[in-house]
Amino acid sequence: MSSVDKQLEQLQAEIENELPSDITVSDVKYEGPELVVYTRHPKEFAQNGDLIRKLASKLRKRITVRPDPDVLSDPHKAEERIMDVIPEEAGVTDLDFHVDTGEVVIEAAKPGMVIGRHGSTLREITKEVGWTPEVVRTPPIESSTVSNVRNFLKQEREERRDILERVGRQIHREEMSKDEWVRITTLGCCREVGRASFVLSTPETRILIDCGDKPGAEDEVPYLHVPEALGAGANTIDAVVLTHAHLDHSALIPLLFKYGYDGPIYCTEPTRDLMGLLTLDYLDVAAKEGRTPPYESEMVREAIKHCIPLEYGDVTDIAPDVKLTFHNAGHILGSAVSHFHIGDGLYNVAFSGDIHYKDTRLFNGAVNDFPRVETLVLESTYGGRNDYQTDQEDSEQSLVDIINETHEKGGKVVIPAFAVGRSQEIMLVLEEAMRSGKIPSMPVHLDGMIWEATAIHTTYPEYLRDDLRDRIFHEDENPFLAEEFNHIDGGEDERQQVTDDGPAIILSTSGMVTGGPIMSWLRHLGSDPESTLVFVGYQAQGTLGRRIQTGWDEIPVSDPNDPGRSSTLALKMDVETVDGFSGHADRSGLMNFVKTMNPRPEKVLCVHGDERSVQDLSSSLYHDFNMRTFAPKNLETFRFK
Amino acid sequence: MSSVDKQLEQLQAEIENELPSDITVSDVKYEGPELVVYTRHPKEFAQNGDLIRKLASKLRKRITVRPDPDVLSDPHKAEERIMDVIPEEAGVTDLDFHVDTGEVVIEAAKPGMVIGRHGSTLREITKEVGWTPEVVRTPPIESSTVSNVRNFLKQEREERRDILERVGRQIHREEMSKDEWVRITTLGCCREVGRASFVLSTPETRILIDCGDKPGAEDEVPYLHVPEALGAGANTIDAVVLTHAHLDHSALIPLLFKYGYDGPIYCTEPTRDLMGLLTLDYLDVAAKEGRTPPYESEMVREAIKHCIPLEYGDVTDIAPDVKLTFHNAGHILGSAVSHFHIGDGLYNVAFSGDIHYKDTRLFNGAVNDFPRVETLVLESTYGGRNDYQTDQEDSEQSLVDIINETHEKGGKVVIPAFAVGRSQEIMLVLEEAMRSGKIPSMPVHLDGMIWEATAIHTTYPEYLRDDLRDRIFHEDENPFLAEEFNHIDGGEDERQQVTDDGPAIILSTSGMVTGGPIMSWLRHLGSDPESTLVFVGYQAQGTLGRRIQTGWDEIPVSDPNDPGRSSTLALKMDVETVDGFSGHADRSGLMNFVKTMNPRPEKVLCVHGDERSVQDLSSSLYHDFNMRTFAPKNLETFRFK
Repeated sequence: MSSVDKQLEQLQAEIENELPSDITVSDVKYEGPELVVYTRHPKEFAQNGDLIRKLASKLRKRITVRPDPDVLSDPHKAEERIMDVIPEEAGVTDLDFHVDTGEVVIEAAKPGMVIGRHGSTLREITKEVGWTPEVVRTPPIESSTVSNVRNFLKQEREERRDILERVGRQIHREEMSKDEWVRITTLGCCREVGRASFVLSTPETRILIDCGDKPGAEDEVPYLHVPEALGAGANTIDAVVLTHAHLDHSALIPLLFKYGYDGPIYCTEPTRDLMGLLTLDYLDVAAKEGRTPPYESEMVREAIKHCIPLEYGDVTDIAPDVKLTFHNAGHILGSAVSHFHIGDGLYNVAFSGDIHYKDTRLFNGAVNDFPRVETLVLESTYGGRNDYQTDQEDSEQSLVDIINETHEKGGKVVIPAFAVGRSQEIMLVLEEAMRSGKIPSMPVHLDGMIWEATAIHTTYPEYLRDDLRDRIFHEDENPFLAEEFNHIDGGEDERQQVTDDGPAIILSTSGMVTGGPIMSWLRHLGSDPESTLVFVGYQAQGTLGRRIQTGWDEIPVSDPNDPGRSSTLALKMDVETVDGFSGHADRSGLMNFVKTMNPRPEKVLCVHGDERSVQDLSSSLYHDFNMRTFAPKNLETFRFK
Repeated sequence: MSSVDKQLEQLQAEIENELPSDITVSDVKYEGPELVVYTRHPKEFAQNGDLIRKLASKLRKRITVRPDPDVLSDPHKAEERIMDVIPEEAGVTDLDFHVDTGEVVIEAAKPGMVIGRHGSTLREITKEVGWTPEVVRTPPIESSTVSNVRNFLKQEREERRDILERVGRQIHREEMSKDEWVRITTLGCCREVGRASFVLSTPETRILIDCGDKPGAEDEVPYLHVPEALGAGANTIDAVVLTHAHLDHSALIPLLFKYGYDGPIYCTEPTRDLMGLLTLDYLDVAAKEGRTPPYESEMVREAIKHCIPLEYGDVTDIAPDVKLTFHNAGHILGSAVSHFHIGDGLYNVAFSGDIHYKDTRLFNGAVNDFPRVETLVLESTYGGRNDYQTDQEDSEQSLVDIINETHEKGGKVVIPAFAVGRSQEIMLVLEEAMRSGKIPSMPVHLDGMIWEATAIHTTYPEYLRDDLRDRIFHEDENPFLAEEFNHIDGGEDERQQVTDDGPAIILSTSGMVTGGPIMSWLRHLGSDPESTLVFVGYQAQGTLGRRIQTGWDEIPVSDPNDPGRSSTLALKMDVETVDGFSGHADRSGLMNFVKTMNPRPEKVLCVHGDERSVQDLSSSLYHDFNMRTFAPKNLETFRFK
């Protein structure tokens, strides 16, 4: 009998010991980080409100109770009873019964009303029908990504359970090594922006954190082939952790599955969906640009199938000696500061991922409050000595001014923006500016994946800033549904129409002008001196965006009807940069993130920034806070314990 | 056709092009780092004295010419002719003809006379008989190690040629990677003394440098199992380089073969023989102490079979992008500072191994003169602020005084010493002191492997200090043959006899009193207050030697007739420490080694020393010479390019 089976047998005995004699346990299993308890008495379990909480705290496990399939009530009858229990205002749009696990997935416009106060409505459902309810939100804006992911996971349910069971047994395997050490190996994004990737390793466990591409340098990928990464086989990695869905962190996650990885990816639920959206688009763009994509779309599905979503604040066992906790990073939807607690108090490491330290319109500021962190791996995008950004208020005023000026000239405003994050922030600014009359009401056209990304944002309001979430939840004033917003879904014809029509604002991908519909907008409006091109986000070295920003006024454009032919366009639009909308903390934000940590880490690794930025930030943190700081190179390994 | 075969075809064409038309080439092959040229006209080749040198310099290869087996003269006839050519005083003791390669190995007491001025006698032999002569020295003191190694290699000649051919093709394979970087990974001996082991890696090549044990902590071995070491398979290592034969550098080299490694080990010839001696003893000691040896003696033979001996100063291709050059390290016989030239001028790294910077009686001081070294990995055994050793002259006087005092009291002097290095140094001191009357003539008993190790020293006088070598070569005054030296080969009976007899000096292994015959001498003489125990070498933490040195006077000894039973011995001998005989540079030697380098390296990694020693040396080098210095931990990876 394996050590995991022995462990489960023992857990079952402990649970039976804790339960009242009228509740029996027919099986216990690991599914990913959770312990699943099957019972012939699900209703009795639910009646005893505190039972699960008590068990979880006693066993120090995350526990899910499911009915033994033998005692399940008929789904048709159950459906009726469930609909009786849930208030009509919850807006249930779908019920999906899974006979194999006794779960019923309830999709509703207002999940909170299905859950009830402290989960009371959910318990009521189980008491009535025995099934275990699970709730998801009906996207307020229809999102093909969300529905595709949900349908796909429904379809792959059985295989997914196998994966989860395998992963669960891996997580709870016996610790083998008596040795104690903690190391970080840098596989990318050191002294550069792009191709984020790290290995966190102990004698027991190896965790890959992020696996991104480098915008503007597609051949520079993380060093996955060295022995300490995947050189010893993709399955020498125990777990993958994805801090957020931007491609410079996620693009090559599906590639891992092509290399044979079949372990878990830990990320938030919105990160999972956004990763699906962005990596499929990444393959699309590569194909359009005549590059061979590094993997097929099938691998994106594999990645999604292996995702284990975690919520902010959940402390989760992901290996015998590692607990992971995600915290809000304030950068994009679902972005997470990832905190690793290693060993039994041996060491703590936090990876900031990309962060925004102050609140923005979209998100609360990044969390920097941890019980302990000895080493912090900190992004440094704006870590340079002079990388201070304008205050949000001033930035918004600048944008308002530019829009008004352009409007007066009769031109249009074109804003290249990342589909995910900056676009929604700008949408919120524009919606308020129009509502309050700071700028005239005019159409705001959303091109590329911005509409779809916005739909995903509205599906997960829990991940948005408190007051924005409340507006969407309680007051039914979802700003993303404002009538000015138009989804460009008519291709070149619609773009021509917009070009010919009156004043308008266009938000279009890609954010660094490296391809996508923004290229088409430059063709349509680039030579119009009345119009304005406004950069609102970071432009990486080597991207066309950075070149235009630094003064290039002749830019290569390809013929839409014959992408092979390209010509040169003389750029006559005004070019403006409004900073302060970045998803990244600026210099003071980064310094404050560290300054206000309590306790402060002993060591900081400054990564994810140009050479100058990481060096500046590293030396300032050292001087101001007297901590050991490093500006690693790629392919180094640091030992901490 | 493989790229190596194409390369060889091209080389053959180039060689044919350079040769006079009467000399034909029947084949060219790589054997290890050498290019072997087979010809049907070996005599004509030899007649044209400069031909090989010219070819080597034109092709930038090490070239060996061998006769095509078809044209070989009869060995019996050849033997006669060879003996005619070689002067009688050369003292030929064996001729061994190898029909497969056309080589004849000549063993002689005076190899120089077989070689002749600039190789003239060797060329004369080939001109006469066509065979390619190879010369080895007849050990002046019979050495079972040397004869075992030679016989074994003779026996395994065919397999060895296969190995060399395979290694040769590996070395000359096409470079695959366009990437450029240089890294060092520490697998042991960082902030500690023992288990030396490093990986030097480029995108193309991975080289393991040393693989030792840790005296006094047998369970602490180099971190071979991490993915960046052997975790991705033992054959992800392209080459092993062994700086010298001491067990803290060599003990686990044979283990690599148990793990499946089958590539080359580069070391000097004496290091190969001493490694054989010391690792077999290591297995022996482990067995005697009831530990399971990590490998079998068969693996020692595998290791010896895979050795490719290099001489000091030979610049040798060991990978498509790495050239290795050994230089005298002054530490023990055959010890080498290992210089790696990487890429075409990309980077240079030197590993000091263990060094002695000043001349000793046995060896010239360590070489620190390289055309370029950007990074130096430096031993730090005596790197601490106060680790100054007494001058050699004063040390010798102290030893002389102790011997005289003990002699006057009627006691005996017991000196625990490493079999290899310190023992021979002390032998030279004692021989001179007796010859010049500074101490009375008395028997010097050599116990453990000291006699055998001394025999190996006399086999390779080229590796000894200039004037010592000359004494042995030219004046026939081999000090190791002095009549006072007695080899203890009669076991306990002889030891009892020595104990009962008059004044004597005993040199015995192990040098750190961790086992071996020194334990027996402690039993015999430990309670004799008239006798003196003299430490002359470094005593590592955790060893009994260190404990006695720091004042322990009750020591555990086991019953020689029943090793399971142990009792406590009250130590009543005088205990003295005479430093200055160490094989290691002291603090000033280490500082001077770096100071006098020209150019000085940019970076120094201080390793192979206690925590305090590496920290002190690292900070002093930084302060005095303004270089970047590091005191690495084990399991770190540094990137240099």
